[in-house]
Amino acid sequence: MKTAARVEDVAEKLTSLAKRRGFVFPSSEIYGGAGATWDFGPLGVELKRNVKDSWWRAMVQLRDDIVGLDGAILMHPRVWEASGHIENFTDPLVECSHCRKRFRLDELPNGDALTSAWRANKLDLSKEPCPNCGSMPALSQPRRFNLMFKTFVGPVEDTASIAWLRPETAQSIFVDFESVQQATRRKLPFGIAQIGKAFRNEITPGNFIFRSREFEQMEMQYFSRAADAPRFYEEWKDLRRAWHVAQGIPANKLRFRDHAADERAHYAAAATDIEFEFPFGWREFEGIHYRTDYDLRRHSEFSGKDLSYFDDATNARFVPHVVETSVGADRATYAILCAAYDEEPDKEETRVVLRLRPHLAPYKIAVLPLSKKPELSALAREVWAAVRPHFMSTFDETQAIGRRYRRQDEIGTPLCVTVDFESLVDRAVTIRERDSMGQVRVPIAELIPALREKLGA
Amino acid sequence: MKTAARVEDVAEKLTSLAKRRGFVFPSSEIYGGAGATWDFGPLGVELKRNVKDSWWRAMVQLRDDIVGLDGAILMHPRVWEASGHIENFTDPLVECSHCRKRFRLDELPNGDALTSAWRANKLDLSKEPCPNCGSMPALSQPRRFNLMFKTFVGPVEDTASIAWLRPETAQSIFVDFESVQQATRRKLPFGIAQIGKAFRNEITPGNFIFRSREFEQMEMQYFSRAADAPRFYEEWKDLRRAWHVAQGIPANKLRFRDHAADERAHYAAAATDIEFEFPFGWREFEGIHYRTDYDLRRHSEFSGKDLSYFDDATNARFVPHVVETSVGADRATYAILCAAYDEEPDKEETRVVLRLRPHLAPYKIAVLPLSKKPELSALAREVWAAVRPHFMSTFDETQAIGRRYRRQDEIGTPLCVTVDFESLVDRAVTIRERDSMGQVRVPIAELIPALREKLGA
Repeated sequence: MKTAARVEDVAEKLTSLAKRRGFVFPSSEIYGGAGATWDFGPLGVELKRNVKDSWWRAMVQLRDDIVGLDGAILMHPRVWEASGHIENFTDPLVECSHCRKRFRLDELPNGDALTSAWRANKLDLSKEPCPNCGSMPALSQPRRFNLMFKTFVGPVEDTASIAWLRPETAQSIFVDFESVQQATRRKLPFGIAQIGKAFRNEITPGNFIFRSREFEQMEMQYFSRAADAPRFYEEWKDLRRAWHVAQGIPANKLRFRDHAADERAHYAAAATDIEFEFPFGWREFEGIHYRTDYDLRRHSEFSGKDLSYFDDATNARFVPHVVETSVGADRATYAILCAAYDEEPDKEETRVVLRLRPHLAPYKIAVLPLSKKPELSALAREVWAAVRPHFMSTFDETQAIGRRYRRQDEIGTPLCVTVDFESLVDRAVTIRERDSMGQVRVPIAELIPALREKLGA
Repeated sequence: MKTAARVEDVAEKLTSLAKRRGFVFPSSEIYGGAGATWDFGPLGVELKRNVKDSWWRAMVQLRDDIVGLDGAILMHPRVWEASGHIENFTDPLVECSHCRKRFRLDELPNGDALTSAWRANKLDLSKEPCPNCGSMPALSQPRRFNLMFKTFVGPVEDTASIAWLRPETAQSIFVDFESVQQATRRKLPFGIAQIGKAFRNEITPGNFIFRSREFEQMEMQYFSRAADAPRFYEEWKDLRRAWHVAQGIPANKLRFRDHAADERAHYAAAATDIEFEFPFGWREFEGIHYRTDYDLRRHSEFSGKDLSYFDDATNARFVPHVVETSVGADRATYAILCAAYDEEPDKEETRVVLRLRPHLAPYKIAVLPLSKKPELSALAREVWAAVRPHFMSTFDETQAIGRRYRRQDEIGTPLCVTVDFESLVDRAVTIRERDSMGQVRVPIAELIPALREKLGA
């Protein structure tokens, strides 16, 4: 595998491919878009389903110590007081008094230095020009802007009816900790895993599906004794990196970045990012956080409900400590697409190939009759009908066969099944592989096991 | 199979079972709940995943004419003007001037008659006592209360920044119709299927997960020529009923109820409910709607974008007509639970069995060592590790074996694999079936294929 495409071009090429072939569309595009949210099209929904299923399989099905959960997006408002989000989940927002444009402090030129200065109460913006209109001095002192979306439950809009769209899925797990533990009778250490939507009213979303206002998280909280937590923190770092490699992301495109004490979230005693080298640079797409007993303690305090754990062995009660793994399903999907995107020189033109691992490919199989002749079409549709119950698959009978192979390469379909005129006689078809472009003839009667073997499924 | 439980008791028994075993918890329960939303626990999340996967398989994977989509919850606000939801998605809300309690008009005694009178502009509430405090006359004239949750995108809360939480998933499909059609190059007739969350600010939610403010829909819009739509409407009625039967709901617990002209939604030219006999009576849990070309036409009009379809064969342009199938994932899950719940007399006590179809059961397999002796436990864990990659499964080594079988029956696990002392010698285990309670001895080396065969997987 060689990558001919310049890495900086990949973002643009992927965005275009995503729209053209139906991976990702801007949401509400016919109305000019909707505040940096995205729709997953026919191929994108399959890819993202596969990413989520792969995570669930690794984190729930294959584990003897983790169970699943699916909590509601709308939670009791006190949850966000207890979690610290009402107080701390804010971005410093500055506004230009001249052009009225707003910026996150950290996205100004020298944003990192300005943010540090602000945290140290030493911020001076008088010599910082507005990045939009250039006015100076014009930028206001930062105000804390809470990133949670607000709504109202019930027929009256007042403070008593406020609810928030959850900015992270994790809190359901803490709030339900005791219910889950009692229902499953689990003993420490054990984990609770969840996939679900979260919402953040980002001031400056961007980079395609990397930072959007509505996104999907795959989070797992691992509960243990305090003494064991540091060990699990290290263990989960390794396990999560290994998972990304198993999704086809090369190890040299991944790195850990430990958080400095002054950048850690309010709940974290230790935190590391797993970063991927996106076309626009190294960016975080998973976080491993040692949250200590902060969340369970806070929810005990705010709810008045004892969330401690009773240890049969020692007869002691204590609040478990938590190691969290938190990855964006959209970011993971984007990273997987970036890593899979490949171009190689071909006879006339460049061959674009999405080298997706078979378990992630939207379609495993494409069935292609060599021509549109009715007798070929009929047999090909018969073959497709036999394939469908076993594999997510597609069918294409338009244009030349070489062009149709390219169309499947471009969306990552690992195997094409070609039905030709010989097939009418010998009841056999050709399997063509995406990566090697090698072809092999197989009797239709043996097709399903042959496909399964080639897919490693 | 005999049903000893009185049907009216089933709701209560299921709610208790759901909480105790980890199917469904009230959301934010430690804070006293959160406005009629629910969390799916370790068993519920698996059951609901299976229901959704079964729907996706039937509606996307096995079809040659339907593709998937996953649209954002936050859409452009004009979407809801075009769809008619701003104007029409309202409930008539009356308020008691004495006790200040609010009611939906149709939930008053004689609600149906009052609603008809209101629609005909002939409503008189002067002789209707308040259902809460009995005052009369006290009930206000109805005001239209919009059921969409409101939020604000960006840092300013004003009318320009209003967004709504979608009250149905369908609109993503209409808004993305052209993008999907062009990306997939589909020709009519074809369908677009979607699973996703929707939100309704219900005045009176209730009946467990039947009516909640946050829920999940499984919707499919089938696009065709106008002349073909009535045929597809009938076809989808049959297909959707058949799907519910395939999920284990007895045909005699299902019925169609056609909507009268005055109760149809604003977009529907014909509509029928598929009703299930819930413990609290016959209720709708799926709707089949002939939406005509209403939605695409309205979105063309409001967006200024031509959403007509170009017919290669006739060189004509026209707006496709739509037949929609819309089922609540939560309601379907609830109906499946109700239909599966069974009690039968047993030696000492009643045996509770969830007779879930194997493809829906949260766990397919439970591995049970006969005792907690270390050598048995070790072999049983070895067997469990071999089972996990193939089947969602669980493990239980506490309490007597008979009691553990009952615990698995109660959550619908179709097969138990028991590891006993003989297993240490003959490397064989016992498979015990949930429904027949029959047992059969199988060598560990042949266990996976034996389990697969028994599950019909």
